[in-house]
Amino acid sequence: MNRKDFLKSGLILGGATLLPTNSVFSQSLIENKTDLLVDKVSMTTNTFDFIGGDIGEWKVIHMNPVCGLPLEKVSYLDILPSMTTKMNKGIWTLTGFTSNVRYAEKDEREKLVAVQSDLGRPSATCAALIPIRKTETWWTMAQDERRKIFEAKSHHIETGLKYMPAIARKLYHCRDIGQPFDFLTWFEYAPQDSDKFEELVKSLRETEEWKYVDREIDIRLIKV
Amino acid sequence: MNRKDFLKSGLILGGATLLPTNSVFSQSLIENKTDLLVDKVSMTTNTFDFIGGDIGEWKVIHMNPVCGLPLEKVSYLDILPSMTTKMNKGIWTLTGFTSNVRYAEKDEREKLVAVQSDLGRPSATCAALIPIRKTETWWTMAQDERRKIFEAKSHHIETGLKYMPAIARKLYHCRDIGQPFDFLTWFEYAPQDSDKFEELVKSLRETEEWKYVDREIDIRLIKV
Repeated sequence: MNRKDFLKSGLILGGATLLPTNSVFSQSLIENKTDLLVDKVSMTTNTFDFIGGDIGEWKVIHMNPVCGLPLEKVSYLDILPSMTTKMNKGIWTLTGFTSNVRYAEKDEREKLVAVQSDLGRPSATCAALIPIRKTETWWTMAQDERRKIFEAKSHHIETGLKYMPAIARKLYHCRDIGQPFDFLTWFEYAPQDSDKFEELVKSLRETEEWKYVDREIDIRLIKV
Repeated sequence: MNRKDFLKSGLILGGATLLPTNSVFSQSLIENKTDLLVDKVSMTTNTFDFIGGDIGEWKVIHMNPVCGLPLEKVSYLDILPSMTTKMNKGIWTLTGFTSNVRYAEKDEREKLVAVQSDLGRPSATCAALIPIRKTETWWTMAQDERRKIFEAKSHHIETGLKYMPAIARKLYHCRDIGQPFDFLTWFEYAPQDSDKFEELVKSLRETEEWKYVDREIDIRLIKV
Protein backbone atom coordinates (compact mmCIF):
# COMPACT_ATOMS: atom_id res chain seq x y z
CA MET A 1 0.00 0.00 0.00
CA ASN A 2 1.52 3.35 -0.94
CA ARG A 3 0.85 6.58 0.90
CA LYS A 4 -1.84 7.69 -1.55
CA ASP A 5 -3.79 4.46 -1.11
CA PHE A 6 -3.23 4.68 2.62
CA LEU A 7 -4.52 8.24 2.70
CA LYS A 8 -7.47 7.24 0.53
CA SER A 9 -8.34 4.27 2.69
CA GLY A 10 -10.34 6.51 5.01
CA LEU A 11 -8.28 5.62 8.04
CA ILE A 12 -7.18 9.19 8.54
CA LEU A 13 -9.28 11.53 10.64
CA GLY A 14 -7.99 15.05 11.09
CA GLY A 15 -4.41 14.06 10.41
CA ALA A 16 -4.43 11.20 12.93
CA THR A 17 -4.16 7.75 11.42
CA LEU A 18 -6.40 5.12 12.96
CA LEU A 19 -4.96 1.68 12.65
CA PRO A 20 -5.39 -1.54 14.60
CA THR A 21 -2.02 -1.55 16.31
CA ASN A 22 1.70 -1.55 15.72
CA SER A 23 4.39 0.59 14.11
CA VAL A 24 7.94 -0.25 15.14
CA PHE A 25 7.53 1.86 18.23
CA SER A 26 4.61 0.14 19.86
CA GLN A 27 5.71 -3.39 19.13
CA SER A 28 6.78 -4.00 22.71
CA LEU A 29 3.31 -3.02 23.86
CA ILE A 30 1.68 -5.54 21.56
CA GLU A 31 4.02 -8.28 22.64
CA ASN A 32 3.18 -7.47 26.23
CA LYS A 33 -0.55 -7.78 25.51
CA THR A 34 -1.27 -5.45 28.41
CA ASP A 35 -4.85 -4.37 27.84
CA LEU A 36 -4.54 -1.39 30.16
CA LEU A 37 -1.62 -0.09 28.18
CA VAL A 38 -2.97 -0.28 24.67
CA ASP A 39 -5.86 2.17 24.73
CA LYS A 40 -3.81 4.74 22.85
CA VAL A 41 -1.81 2.26 20.79
CA SER A 42 -4.95 1.02 19.04
CA MET A 43 -4.91 4.38 17.50
CA THR A 44 -2.48 6.66 15.81
CA THR A 45 0.64 6.51 13.78
CA ASN A 46 2.25 9.70 12.68
CA THR A 47 5.44 8.06 11.50
CA PHE A 48 6.43 7.68 7.85
CA ASP A 49 9.31 6.07 5.97
CA PHE A 50 10.88 7.89 3.03
CA ILE A 51 12.33 5.04 0.98
CA GLY A 52 14.88 5.83 -1.70
CA GLY A 53 15.38 3.01 -4.21
CA ASP A 54 14.46 1.69 -7.65
CA ILE A 55 10.69 1.96 -7.28
CA GLY A 56 8.24 4.50 -5.95
CA GLU A 57 5.54 7.04 -6.57
CA TRP A 58 8.05 9.85 -7.11
CA LYS A 59 10.87 9.89 -9.69
CA VAL A 60 14.06 11.58 -8.51
CA ILE A 61 15.27 14.14 -11.03
CA HIS A 62 18.07 15.71 -9.00
CA MET A 63 19.98 15.15 -5.74
CA ASN A 64 22.19 17.99 -4.56
CA PRO A 65 24.20 17.73 -1.33
CA VAL A 66 23.95 21.36 -0.14
CA CYS A 67 26.20 20.78 2.88
CA GLY A 68 27.58 17.86 4.86
CA LEU A 69 27.70 14.22 3.77
CA PRO A 70 25.69 13.34 0.63
CA LEU A 71 23.20 10.48 0.37
CA GLU A 72 23.59 7.57 -2.05
CA LYS A 73 21.91 8.33 -5.40
CA VAL A 74 18.51 6.74 -5.94
CA SER A 75 16.04 6.82 -8.86
CA TYR A 76 12.71 6.72 -7.06
CA LEU A 77 11.18 7.60 -3.72
CA ASP A 78 8.20 6.15 -1.87
CA ILE A 79 6.60 7.55 1.27
CA LEU A 80 4.85 4.96 3.39
CA PRO A 81 3.44 4.71 6.90
CA SER A 82 6.24 3.13 8.94
CA MET A 83 4.31 0.06 10.03
CA THR A 84 3.75 -1.07 6.43
CA THR A 85 7.38 -1.00 5.34
CA LYS A 86 9.17 -3.71 7.27
CA MET A 87 9.74 -5.74 4.10
CA ASN A 88 10.50 -2.79 1.84
CA LYS A 89 13.95 -1.40 2.42
CA GLY A 90 15.09 0.43 -0.70
CA ILE A 91 18.66 1.73 -0.88
CA TRP A 92 18.09 3.98 2.12
CA THR A 93 15.17 4.74 4.42
CA LEU A 94 14.68 7.97 6.33
CA THR A 95 12.01 7.92 9.03
CA GLY A 96 10.21 10.90 10.57
CA PHE A 97 7.08 11.76 12.53
CA THR A 98 4.66 14.66 12.37
CA SER A 99 4.18 16.44 15.70
CA ASN A 100 2.71 19.49 17.43
CA VAL A 101 3.96 22.93 16.37
CA ARG A 102 7.20 23.91 18.09
CA TYR A 103 7.57 27.64 17.27
CA ALA A 104 4.39 29.05 15.68
CA GLU A 105 2.40 31.37 17.94
CA LYS A 106 -1.39 31.64 18.01
CA ASP A 107 -1.78 34.31 15.31
CA GLU A 108 0.85 32.72 13.07
CA ARG A 109 -0.77 29.33 13.46
CA GLU A 110 -4.17 30.77 12.49
CA LYS A 111 -2.68 32.39 9.38
CA LEU A 112 -0.97 29.12 8.42
CA VAL A 113 -4.14 27.07 8.87
CA ALA A 114 -6.12 29.62 6.82
CA VAL A 115 -3.87 29.55 3.74
CA GLN A 116 -1.95 26.28 3.66
CA SER A 117 -2.82 23.57 1.16
CA ASP A 118 -3.00 19.83 1.64
CA LEU A 119 -0.54 17.34 0.21
CA GLY A 120 -1.72 15.24 -2.71
CA ARG A 121 -3.25 17.93 -4.96
CA PRO A 122 -3.47 16.44 -8.50
CA SER A 123 -1.85 19.60 -9.96
CA ALA A 124 1.15 19.36 -7.60
CA THR A 125 3.32 17.04 -9.67
CA CYS A 126 6.62 18.53 -8.48
CA ALA A 127 8.07 17.80 -5.05
CA ALA A 128 11.19 18.38 -2.97
CA LEU A 129 12.50 16.31 -0.07
CA ILE A 130 15.10 18.32 1.84
CA PRO A 131 16.49 16.42 4.86
CA ILE A 132 18.22 18.82 7.26
CA ARG A 133 20.42 18.49 10.32
CA LYS A 134 21.20 21.34 12.71
CA THR A 135 24.28 21.79 14.92
CA GLU A 136 24.56 20.91 18.60
CA THR A 137 24.78 24.68 19.27
CA TRP A 138 21.24 25.03 17.92
CA TRP A 139 19.87 22.22 20.05
CA THR A 140 21.46 23.33 23.30
CA MET A 141 19.86 26.77 23.00
CA ALA A 142 16.78 27.50 25.12
CA GLN A 143 13.33 27.75 23.50
CA ASP A 144 13.29 31.59 23.40
CA GLU A 145 16.79 31.73 21.86
CA ARG A 146 15.80 29.32 19.08
CA ARG A 147 12.50 31.11 18.50
CA LYS A 148 14.32 34.49 18.22
CA ILE A 149 16.57 33.17 15.46
CA PHE A 150 13.79 31.16 13.79
CA GLU A 151 11.25 33.96 13.46
CA ALA A 152 12.37 37.39 14.76
CA LYS A 153 15.66 37.22 12.81
CA SER A 154 15.00 34.69 10.04
CA HIS A 155 11.23 35.18 9.43
CA HIS A 156 10.82 31.47 8.75
CA ILE A 157 7.03 31.39 9.17
CA GLU A 158 6.48 34.78 7.50
CA THR A 159 8.52 33.68 4.46
CA GLY A 160 6.69 30.37 4.19
CA LEU A 161 3.31 32.17 4.31
CA LYS A 162 4.23 34.28 1.27
CA TYR A 163 4.39 31.15 -0.90
CA MET A 164 1.17 29.54 0.30
CA PRO A 165 -1.09 28.10 -0.93
CA ALA A 166 1.03 27.45 -4.06
CA ILE A 167 3.64 25.48 -2.10
CA ALA A 168 2.23 22.78 0.20
CA ARG A 169 4.61 21.57 2.88
CA LYS A 170 4.89 19.09 5.71
CA LEU A 171 7.52 18.77 8.42
CA TYR A 172 8.64 15.39 9.76
CA HIS A 173 10.78 15.29 12.92
CA CYS A 174 13.53 12.70 13.34
CA ARG A 175 16.28 13.95 15.65
CA ASP A 176 14.71 12.28 18.69
CA ILE A 177 14.58 8.81 17.12
CA GLY A 178 18.26 8.38 16.30
CA GLN A 179 18.02 9.33 12.62
CA PRO A 180 20.88 10.86 10.57
CA PHE A 181 18.88 14.09 10.03
CA ASP A 182 16.87 16.27 12.42
CA PHE A 183 14.03 17.03 9.98
CA LEU A 184 12.64 15.75 6.70
CA THR A 185 11.05 18.74 4.98
CA TRP A 186 8.63 17.90 2.16
CA PHE A 187 7.15 20.29 -0.42
CA GLU A 188 4.63 19.81 -3.27
CA TYR A 189 3.84 22.32 -6.03
CA ALA A 190 2.66 22.61 -9.63
CA PRO A 191 5.29 22.96 -12.42
CA GLN A 192 4.24 26.60 -13.00
CA ASP A 193 5.16 27.39 -9.36
CA SER A 194 8.73 26.08 -9.66
CA ASP A 195 10.22 29.59 -9.69
CA LYS A 196 8.34 30.48 -6.52
CA PHE A 197 9.73 27.38 -4.86
CA GLU A 198 13.32 28.28 -5.88
CA GLU A 199 12.76 31.74 -4.37
CA LEU A 200 11.46 30.25 -1.11
CA VAL A 201 14.39 27.85 -0.74
CA LYS A 202 16.91 30.60 -1.59
CA SER A 203 15.35 32.98 0.98
CA LEU A 204 15.51 30.41 3.76
CA ARG A 205 19.10 29.42 2.98
CA GLU A 206 20.17 33.05 3.37
CA THR A 207 18.77 33.37 6.90
CA GLU A 208 20.62 33.36 10.21
CA GLU A 209 18.74 30.15 11.07
CA TRP A 210 20.49 28.37 8.18
CA LYS A 211 23.92 29.06 9.73
CA TYR A 212 22.98 26.29 12.16
CA VAL A 213 22.31 23.76 9.36
CA ASP A 214 25.29 21.42 9.02
CA ARG A 215 23.83 18.75 6.72
CA GLU A 216 21.32 19.29 3.95
CA ILE A 217 20.44 17.35 0.80
CA ASP A 218 18.15 18.86 -1.82
CA ILE A 219 16.20 16.10 -3.59
CA ARG A 220 13.81 17.13 -6.39
CA LEU A 221 11.12 14.82 -7.68
CA ILE A 222 8.26 14.52 -10.14
CA LYS A 223 5.16 12.41 -9.76
CA VAL A 224 5.18 9.15 -11.72
CA MET B 1 23.18 -4.56 31.39
CA ASN B 2 21.08 -2.31 33.60
CA ARG B 3 21.02 1.47 33.30
CA LYS B 4 23.56 1.97 36.07
CA ASP B 5 26.08 -0.33 34.37
CA PHE B 6 25.27 1.32 31.07
CA LEU B 7 25.84 4.77 32.53
CA LYS B 8 29.05 3.56 34.16
CA SER B 9 30.35 2.06 30.94
CA GLY B 10 31.70 5.44 29.92
CA LEU B 11 29.73 5.55 26.69
CA ILE B 12 27.88 8.66 27.75
CA LEU B 13 29.37 12.05 26.95
CA GLY B 14 27.37 15.06 28.02
CA GLY B 15 24.10 13.19 27.98
CA ALA B 16 24.62 11.72 24.53
CA THR B 17 25.18 8.00 24.42
CA LEU B 18 27.84 6.80 22.02
CA LEU B 19 27.13 3.35 20.73
CA PRO B 20 28.07 1.42 17.63
CA THR B 21 24.67 1.38 15.99
CA ASN B 22 21.06 0.42 16.42
CA SER B 23 18.09 1.05 18.73
CA VAL B 24 14.75 0.01 17.33
CA PHE B 25 14.54 3.24 15.41
CA SER B 26 17.63 2.98 13.30
CA GLN B 27 17.30 -0.70 12.51
CA SER B 28 16.21 0.03 8.96
CA LEU B 29 19.38 2.05 8.46
CA ILE B 30 21.57 -0.82 9.56
CA GLU B 31 19.78 -3.26 7.35
CA ASN B 32 20.28 -0.88 4.47
CA LYS B 33 24.04 -0.73 5.13
CA THR B 34 24.17 2.72 3.56
CA ASP B 35 27.49 4.13 4.69
CA LEU B 36 26.51 7.68 3.80
CA LEU B 37 23.48 7.46 6.02
CA VAL B 38 24.97 6.08 9.18
CA ASP B 39 27.34 8.83 10.30
CA LYS B 40 24.92 9.94 12.98
CA VAL B 41 23.49 6.51 13.67
CA SER B 42 26.89 5.31 14.90
CA MET B 43 26.22 7.65 17.70
CA THR B 44 23.46 8.43 20.11
CA THR B 45 20.58 6.80 21.78
CA ASN B 46 18.44 8.85 24.06
CA THR B 47 15.68 6.28 24.29
CA PHE B 48 14.97 4.22 27.40
CA ASP B 49 12.53 1.44 28.30
CA PHE B 50 10.78 1.53 31.67
CA ILE B 51 10.00 -2.14 32.26
CA GLY B 52 7.45 -3.05 34.94
CA GLY B 53 7.59 -6.70 36.02
CA ASP B 54 8.91 -9.13 38.61
CA ILE B 55 12.54 -8.02 38.54
CA GLY B 56 14.39 -4.72 38.49
CA GLU B 57 16.59 -2.21 40.23
CA TRP B 58 13.60 -0.43 41.81
CA LYS B 59 10.94 -2.02 44.04
CA VAL B 60 7.43 -0.64 43.54
CA ILE B 61 5.88 0.35 46.86
CA HIS B 62 2.72 2.03 45.56
CA MET B 63 0.85 2.55 42.26
CA ASN B 64 -1.94 5.12 42.31
CA PRO B 65 -4.00 5.86 39.17
CA VAL B 66 -4.51 9.63 39.63
CA CYS B 67 -6.73 9.94 36.57
CA GLY B 68 -7.61 7.92 33.48
CA LEU B 69 -6.99 4.20 32.93
CA PRO B 70 -4.71 2.50 35.47
CA LEU B 71 -1.69 0.33 34.63
CA GLU B 72 -1.40 -3.33 35.60
CA LYS B 73 0.24 -3.73 39.03
CA VAL B 74 3.91 -4.72 39.00
CA SER B 75 6.42 -5.41 41.80
CA TYR B 76 9.63 -4.09 40.26
CA LEU B 77 10.83 -1.62 37.65
CA ASP B 78 13.95 -1.57 35.51
CA ILE B 79 15.11 1.31 33.31
CA LEU B 80 17.25 0.24 30.36
CA PRO B 81 18.51 1.76 27.12
CA SER B 82 15.96 0.66 24.49
CA MET B 83 18.41 -1.21 22.30
CA THR B 84 19.31 -3.63 25.09
CA THR B 85 15.80 -4.73 25.98
CA LYS B 86 14.45 -6.64 23.01
CA MET B 87 14.41 -9.89 24.98
CA ASN B 88 13.24 -8.39 28.27
CA LYS B 89 9.57 -7.57 28.20
CA GLY B 90 8.22 -7.51 31.75
CA ILE B 91 4.49 -7.09 32.31
CA TRP B 92 4.50 -3.72 30.54
CA THR B 93 7.11 -1.51 28.91
CA LEU B 94 6.88 2.24 28.55
CA THR B 95 9.40 3.85 26.19
CA GLY B 96 10.50 7.49 26.13
CA PHE B 97 13.32 9.68 24.85
CA THR B 98 15.15 12.65 26.30
CA SER B 99 15.12 15.72 24.04
CA ASN B 100 15.91 19.42 23.82
CA VAL B 101 14.06 21.80 26.18
CA ARG B 102 10.63 22.76 24.88
CA TYR B 103 9.57 25.66 27.17
CA ALA B 104 12.49 26.86 29.33
CA GLU B 105 13.90 30.25 28.33
CA LYS B 106 17.56 31.24 28.55
CA ASP B 107 17.54 32.57 32.13
CA GLU B 108 15.37 29.72 33.38
CA ARG B 109 17.60 27.19 31.70
CA GLU B 110 20.69 28.71 33.31
CA LYS B 111 19.05 28.57 36.75
CA LEU B 112 18.05 24.93 36.18
CA VAL B 113 21.53 23.91 35.05
CA ALA B 114 23.07 25.70 38.06
CA VAL B 115 21.01 23.91 40.73
CA GLN B 116 19.76 20.60 39.35
CA SER B 117 21.24 17.31 40.51
CA ASP B 118 22.11 14.21 38.52
CA LEU B 119 20.24 10.95 38.68
CA GLY B 120 21.94 8.07 40.50
CA ARG B 121 23.01 9.81 43.74
CA PRO B 122 23.66 7.05 46.35
CA SER B 123 21.53 8.94 48.90
CA ALA B 124 18.54 9.14 46.53
CA THR B 125 16.95 5.78 47.34
CA CYS B 126 13.37 6.97 46.76
CA ALA B 127 11.94 7.49 43.28
CA ALA B 128 8.69 8.27 41.50
CA LEU B 129 7.69 7.38 37.94
CA ILE B 130 4.66 9.47 36.94
CA PRO B 131 3.54 8.78 33.35
CA ILE B 132 1.28 11.58 32.11
CA ARG B 133 -0.95 12.13 29.09
CA LYS B 134 -2.37 15.51 28.09
CA THR B 135 -5.57 16.24 26.16
CA GLU B 136 -5.83 16.95 22.42
CA THR B 137 -6.80 20.52 23.39
CA TRP B 138 -3.34 20.97 24.91
CA TRP B 139 -1.55 19.62 21.86
CA THR B 140 -3.46 21.66 19.31
CA MET B 141 -2.55 24.91 21.06
CA ALA B 142 0.25 27.04 19.59
CA GLN B 143 3.65 27.26 21.31
CA ASP B 144 2.95 30.63 23.03
CA GLU B 145 -0.44 29.45 24.31
CA ARG B 146 1.12 26.33 25.86
CA ARG B 147 4.04 28.32 27.28
CA LYS B 148 1.60 30.84 28.88
CA ILE B 149 -0.24 28.08 30.74
CA PHE B 150 2.96 26.13 31.54
CA GLU B 151 4.92 28.98 33.11
CA ALA B 152 3.10 32.33 33.33
CA LYS B 153 -0.01 30.74 34.88
CA SER B 154 1.26 27.46 36.36
CA HIS B 155 4.87 28.37 37.28
CA HIS B 156 6.01 24.87 36.36
CA ILE B 157 9.74 25.70 36.10
CA GLU B 158 9.68 28.12 39.06
CA THR B 159 8.03 25.49 41.28
CA GLY B 160 10.49 22.78 40.19
CA LEU B 161 13.43 25.08 40.99
CA LYS B 162 12.26 25.50 44.61
CA TYR B 163 12.80 21.79 45.24
CA MET B 164 16.22 21.48 43.63
CA PRO B 165 18.78 20.11 44.23
CA ALA B 166 16.96 17.83 46.72
CA ILE B 167 14.69 16.39 44.01
CA ALA B 168 16.50 15.23 40.85
CA ARG B 169 14.27 14.83 37.82
CA LYS B 170 14.36 13.73 34.18
CA LEU B 171 11.72 14.08 31.49
CA TYR B 172 11.22 11.43 28.82
CA HIS B 173 8.99 12.25 25.80
CA CYS B 174 6.80 9.59 24.23
CA ARG B 175 3.75 11.14 22.55
CA ASP B 176 5.48 11.23 19.16
CA ILE B 177 6.34 7.52 19.14
CA GLY B 178 2.85 6.09 19.55
CA GLN B 179 3.06 5.43 23.28
CA PRO B 180 0.06 5.38 25.65
CA PHE B 181 1.42 8.40 27.58
CA ASP B 182 2.88 11.73 26.42
CA PHE B 183 5.62 11.93 29.07
CA LEU B 184 7.36 9.70 31.56
CA THR B 185 8.41 11.93 34.45
CA TRP B 186 11.05 10.46 36.76
CA PHE B 187 12.16 11.80 40.15
CA GLU B 188 14.85 10.67 42.64
CA TYR B 189 15.27 11.88 46.22
CA ALA B 190 16.51 10.86 49.68
CA PRO B 191 13.99 9.50 52.23
CA GLN B 192 14.32 12.68 54.33
CA ASP B 193 13.14 14.74 51.33
CA SER B 194 9.89 12.76 50.90
CA ASP B 195 7.75 15.58 52.33
CA LYS B 196 9.30 18.06 49.90
CA PHE B 197 8.45 15.74 47.04
CA GLU B 198 4.82 15.41 48.18
CA GLU B 199 4.63 19.23 48.28
CA LEU B 200 6.05 19.53 44.76
CA VAL B 201 3.63 16.98 43.29
CA LYS B 202 0.67 18.58 45.11
CA SER B 203 1.62 22.07 43.85
CA LEU B 204 1.84 20.91 40.23
CA ARG B 205 -1.46 19.01 40.38
CA GLU B 206 -3.23 22.19 41.52
CA THR B 207 -2.08 24.24 38.50
CA GLU B 208 -4.01 25.24 35.41
CA GLU B 209 -1.59 23.12 33.36
CA TRP B 210 -2.84 20.00 35.16
CA LYS B 211 -6.40 20.60 33.92
CA TYR B 212 -5.04 19.33 30.60
CA VAL B 213 -3.78 16.04 32.09
CA ASP B 214 -6.22 13.23 31.29
CA ARG B 215 -4.18 10.20 32.31
CA GLU B 216 -1.72 10.01 35.17
CA ILE B 217 -0.34 7.13 37.25
CA ASP B 218 1.73 7.83 40.35
CA ILE B 219 4.25 5.02 40.89
CA ARG B 220 6.50 5.21 43.97
CA LEU B 221 9.65 3.15 44.28
CA ILE B 222 12.61 2.40 46.50
CA LYS B 223 16.04 1.29 45.41
CA VAL B 224 16.72 -2.43 45.83
